[in-house]
Amino acid sequence: MIRAEILTIGDEILYGQILDTNSQWISAKLTEIGVQVIRKTSIADRSEDLRKALDEGLSRASLMILTGGLGPTLDDITKPVLAEYFDSEMAINEDALGLIKGFFEKRGRVLLEVNRLQAMIPLKAEYLQNKMGTAPGMWFDAGNQRAVVSLPGVPYEMKYLMEQHVMPRIKERFSLPVILHRYMRTIGLGESFIADKIKDWEEQLPAHIRLAYLPSVFMVKMRLTAMGQNPEALARELDAQIALVKERLGDHVYALEDVEPIEIVYRLLKEQGKTIGSAESCTGGHIAAQLSSLPGSSSFFMGSVVAYSNEVKKNQLGVSDQTLSDHGAVSEACIGEMAKGLRRRLGTDLALASSGIAGPEGGSDEKPVGTVWIALADEKAVYPRKLNLSGASRENIIRATTLAALNLVRLHLTGKLESRP
Amino acid sequence: MIRAEILTIGDEILYGQILDTNSQWISAKLTEIGVQVIRKTSIADRSEDLRKALDEGLSRASLMILTGGLGPTLDDITKPVLAEYFDSEMAINEDALGLIKGFFEKRGRVLLEVNRLQAMIPLKAEYLQNKMGTAPGMWFDAGNQRAVVSLPGVPYEMKYLMEQHVMPRIKERFSLPVILHRYMRTIGLGESFIADKIKDWEEQLPAHIRLAYLPSVFMVKMRLTAMGQNPEALARELDAQIALVKERLGDHVYALEDVEPIEIVYRLLKEQGKTIGSAESCTGGHIAAQLSSLPGSSSFFMGSVVAYSNEVKKNQLGVSDQTLSDHGAVSEACIGEMAKGLRRRLGTDLALASSGIAGPEGGSDEKPVGTVWIALADEKAVYPRKLNLSGASRENIIRATTLAALNLVRLHLTGKLESRP
Repeated sequence: MIRAEILTIGDEILYGQILDTNSQWISAKLTEIGVQVIRKTSIADRSEDLRKALDEGLSRASLMILTGGLGPTLDDITKPVLAEYFDSEMAINEDALGLIKGFFEKRGRVLLEVNRLQAMIPLKAEYLQNKMGTAPGMWFDAGNQRAVVSLPGVPYEMKYLMEQHVMPRIKERFSLPVILHRYMRTIGLGESFIADKIKDWEEQLPAHIRLAYLPSVFMVKMRLTAMGQNPEALARELDAQIALVKERLGDHVYALEDVEPIEIVYRLLKEQGKTIGSAESCTGGHIAAQLSSLPGSSSFFMGSVVAYSNEVKKNQLGVSDQTLSDHGAVSEACIGEMAKGLRRRLGTDLALASSGIAGPEGGSDEKPVGTVWIALADEKAVYPRKLNLSGASRENIIRATTLAALNLVRLHLTGKLESRP
Repeated sequence: MIRAEILTIGDEILYGQILDTNSQWISAKLTEIGVQVIRKTSIADRSEDLRKALDEGLSRASLMILTGGLGPTLDDITKPVLAEYFDSEMAINEDALGLIKGFFEKRGRVLLEVNRLQAMIPLKAEYLQNKMGTAPGMWFDAGNQRAVVSLPGVPYEMKYLMEQHVMPRIKERFSLPVILHRYMRTIGLGESFIADKIKDWEEQLPAHIRLAYLPSVFMVKMRLTAMGQNPEALARELDAQIALVKERLGDHVYALEDVEPIEIVYRLLKEQGKTIGSAESCTGGHIAAQLSSLPGSSSFFMGSVVAYSNEVKKNQLGVSDQTLSDHGAVSEACIGEMAKGLRRRLGTDLALASSGIAGPEGGSDEKPVGTVWIALADEKAVYPRKLNLSGASRENIIRATTLAALNLVRLHLTGKLESRP
């Protein structure tokens, strides 16, 4: 398998002033076509560091993709270092110079000598035309079927050069295996619980199929990756394996693709033409924010009442004094009245409700921080659920509650809610 | 200067499946205290790659911070490799085991063997207590004043361990230069606009004082960093420089410390004993989510109505048919009725309202995507503002609108709102 490394160059990355999104994008692109990214490195704008990184990288990988350090200023050292590294003269590339001149004319700016010099290219480099900016891309043959590619750090320029020039050359010049991925997104189970449930399955996976767990708050993303020669055979293998895991995890699997829960809820609501709203206490508007996050949400999301105070719970949702005094706001009784009240007042098909103790204050022995009630109401009934999220931070209690509420909608619209405790 | 390297471990990073935000956060933290980050590396979950990366890193740097690979599953190899690398036996750490047990008891989940094994720690490692999750942090003395620190990859766990255990140890065990920072947080101005406004000031900065711009949606964070020997003299210098910039940027400066706008709004509302709520259309609950984000929010945040549909605007906020038919929902008239209606129904001192076109659909020539109205209402008046956020993504329009609304509260409670156009 072709091994590649990505090298991002720039002090601002090491200072933590900018987030390097280029290397993630490049990794995903290379992975898609079966190039194995074995390492990513970020270094400063220092010639010696770049020379060393090139030596190290080429000793491990046959393809190195560099981004950054191609600007017109003195601290941009990538091009001179590469020219020296590959022992190559530099000369003005007329095509590149033409593009740069046009770039400045369009903007009515004067072409400075520093800009003209951006058209200087090492003669041993293959010129990669950049129509998005003034820094040309470069492809260097490093011998022994190895290549070094230098791209600008500006994301849209880098992406243009990757798609237009680099990806086609990689496919053409390297012999690539077939690599396939399958995703499984789960909600409401911990990583270790899942690992235990599928331990024996995981251990019997063939060597050419690898499983990765990508946990986040209240969710675990699982990715199966298969490598080989025959795409059809690999696809069948992966589908068979995925079917086995899905059976183990049941309703906790909310998607066999890499999408967020709201995306699934969005599709179900649209398909079934159902409207929805939320009555939120502890989630403080996060459920509404999720329901309105995707373009076109207004076709099913009517609105919400964030009832943070008991007064608002009573006056805007119709929760009774009796309920609040007998059971408190964090109770099955209150959550039910909140959901029904919201549904009645907004006239939606479905209503979600949340009430809990997000902390860090406000907990008691009977109801510690992390005690949360959520409920879904439809025209027939209310489906309440109690969550125990103690130990989590305030932020994560809110996040987990929001996801659990969205999950109630998914389960309900797929006919799985009644069957649950 | 102390040289450090950051090593992030995980196939998911090399596959481009997740964006590594940890290394940026760690870089910024280390830079703040005068540690020089010279390289960042990402490697796969492979023992041999980790061993090599440790050798290389320790040959260049005196501090290595590792994240990832500490989970309970088979693909988590960091801990065994470190134990072997430092030639150390492993044993159950009772403190860690106690935390893990508590973690599972609180959630009413059974402790599995894989979880118990997370409490296994190499005896040569200094145990770093992780109260946010089940993976303990570890500090290894690598000899010759060098150290290797291993942290979980889950961002909130990594941040907790860095702040609680790692940063204090670095300050205590390495000799660091005197570095002082001053932060200035601005809202509502673009980076280039600020840069132009303070160009001459920036050019006269002495060499030992550096300015960094850290732009985000609708805000720019500015950090002045001074390095030297005498902390008192540096502090005086920085304060004098900050005063100069603040004068240039006026009311757009919302804090001379590194805090989010909600923190300032929170303090002002508590000091003045004012209550607040929000009536939200395009922000879809994000203003409420902000107002309820901090512990103790319930002392001033009563609740919100997310009025996504016009029906909800009419029935829950009392917006008139006339207003909606004559001016539409995205109008000064509608936003005013929303704010007043919310304030009247919830009985709060202050009410915020938002209505705009977040896109990508729904724009017109008269009201393109990014056209947004916000308003603040108090007992005397309504203060509407129009925002033009065209060109921004849906997500950023919502984010900017939310921040602009919070800014209205800050300006009002500091007596600056009336004076503005």
